[in-house]
Amino acid sequence: MSIRIFVTGGTFDKEYNEITGELYFKDSHLPEMLKLGRSRVPVDIRTLMMIDSLKMTDIDRELIARHCIEAVEEKIIVTHGTDTMAETARMLAGKIKDKTVVLTGAMIPYKFGSSDGLFNMGSALAFVQTLPMGVYVAMNGRYFEALNVRKNKETGQFEEVS
Amino acid sequence: MSIRIFVTGGTFDKEYNEITGELYFKDSHLPEMLKLGRSRVPVDIRTLMMIDSLKMTDIDRELIARHCIEAVEEKIIVTHGTDTMAETARMLAGKIKDKTVVLTGAMIPYKFGSSDGLFNMGSALAFVQTLPMGVYVAMNGRYFEALNVRKNKETGQFEEVS
Amino acid sequence: MSIRIFVTGGTFDKEYNEITGELYFKDSHLPEMLKLGRSRVPVDIRTLMMIDSLKMTDIDRELIARHCIEAVEEKIIVTHGTDTMAETARMLAGKIKDKTVVLTGAMIPYKFGSSDGLFNMGSALAFVQTLPMGVYVAMNGRYFEALNVRKNKETGQFEEVS
Amino acid sequence: MSIRIFVTGGTFDKEYNEITGELYFKDSHLPEMLKLGRSRVPVDIRTLMMIDSLKMTDIDRELIARHCIEAVEEKIIVTHGTDTMAETARMLAGKIKDKTVVLTGAMIPYKFGSSDGLFNMGSALAFVQTLPMGVYVAMNGRYFEALNVRKNKETGQFEEVS
Repeated sequence: MSIRIFVTGGTFDKEYNEITGELYFKDSHLPEMLKLGRSRVPVDIRTLMMIDSLKMTDIDRELIARHCIEAVEEKIIVTHGTDTMAETARMLAGKIKDKTVVLTGAMIPYKFGSSDGLFNMGSALAFVQTLPMGVYVAMNGRYFEALNVRKNKETGQFEEVS
Repeated sequence: MSIRIFVTGGTFDKEYNEITGELYFKDSHLPEMLKLGRSRVPVDIRTLMMIDSLKMTDIDRELIARHCIEAVEEKIIVTHGTDTMAETARMLAGKIKDKTVVLTGAMIPYKFGSSDGLFNMGSALAFVQTLPMGVYVAMNGRYFEALNVRKNKETGQFEEVS
Repeated sequence: MSIRIFVTGGTFDKEYNEITGELYFKDSHLPEMLKLGRSRVPVDIRTLMMIDSLKMTDIDRELIARHCIEAVEEKIIVTHGTDTMAETARMLAGKIKDKTVVLTGAMIPYKFGSSDGLFNMGSALAFVQTLPMGVYVAMNGRYFEALNVRKNKETGQFEEVS
Repeated sequence: MSIRIFVTGGTFDKEYNEITGELYFKDSHLPEMLKLGRSRVPVDIRTLMMIDSLKMTDIDRELIARHCIEAVEEKIIVTHGTDTMAETARMLAGKIKDKTVVLTGAMIPYKFGSSDGLFNMGSALAFVQTLPMGVYVAMNGRYFEALNVRKNKETGQFEEVS
């Protein structure tokens, strides 16, 4: 069965607007990234929103949860800004017990040469295929249980809470 | 415990020699790739050889097997040229039963903008952490059992034999 | 004789801060760019400031002018944000008559894959070696006289005023 | 008037064939490079051949010369492999006196991250607009008169003969 990918925005998909000099969201780079990775995993990509995760509201999170619950797929990847990824993961973990949901993102926009995005996408796609049911964050080459992860604001790295 | 990474060469690590105009092996790009991916997974990288997998002999494969067997780590990644990756996987599967060994590589050298290397490295690192004991090939975003994989020479993609 | 390069900042040298998610100035990428271009032109690079050209004041422009005038070199490149590049060029043209001064910059930060920076640097370096004394803007593969150039804010392209 | 660009191949345009693992010629990257450079210089690109310059014969060089002579444009860029670029330049210099012809190329294929191609294209485009009639090689950020240039096979750099 296909893997469902829900796009919500985040650093991953930020572009540089050369007229205004600001970072903004255009289209998701997911299809381009999967093509570059020569991925042969059947996926179904749907963009739910394109926002900075610091601006994500409870209503946005409800929307993500509802889509995860209603999806026919049992394996789901959610691309997400890193700042509140752990918060969304925790909320999803309270509602979804019978699917494998992996949240991932990037510290640097994909279009920057120094982005971690392609690496993270490769690992998220692998984790969602192999981890048991549950909600996880896939960052820094590792996976974290949704109820035991936080982003260290100083180092920018994800780590266990306890 | 650390993950052991054995480097054997392959397209992954090919560089362009600007004096001779030929592709050649210099150093492995593994450390650079893991840094780019902001990987926080403890790894121990060792270069066993730097060769094109079409030139890999039985003696070379014996060497790889011996290193896998003698390593203290239970989780091992082998970077390898794609042309004979399935052959090496099969041979390793006959000798190693109590470790998780994941072979990966790239269709395009990492230093080319269009390389699948970073994506593959992300997925191999995830697969080695989550798959049960056994020998696998991680390519195209998927994992394959060592005894049921081949590279399709026409499409360049990996697929199940049966 | 060497070519003098004065760095003043601009989009050219913007980096992405992965902790704050903002664009900022770190070091100039000029040395790295000239190395990538295998440039063998003797240059002497000096950073005068690292600012967004929208924040450039008259005092900053005076500083640039003074450095151009006092430099022993007769050929000078000034890297500069594109938003007020034409304004700085005009001001310099009123003060410098006996040197060739070429201003250049980029629409997209050098560290983005889609940057025009390397192309612009190649053309600026060529123009400064071949154009007669005067002040010029080098953008979009062309050169413009300082008194007859503006940035079209809608297209992001440089064009003649008349 | 437009600038004419004749494509003859060379390292510039080499791609990596992921099925055979060899470098080969596909299409020219010139249009993509000029777009990346946000070039607004009117150009007319024509591919004459796509070969390694070590394989270029006298007949090939005659063909290039004829096209340069017959072109209506007075400013011409020829993209060319670096190994025999100086030889072709010398030959063209004997036949073309009333046009500005600039030969350029790259040490590393454009598709490699470390390519000098975009930089060289920026400089060649600038040189052809500003240099007087004659035949030149544009490499390493510099221009060389056709009758006084050679490629140093050991360093890979272009230099004056005398």
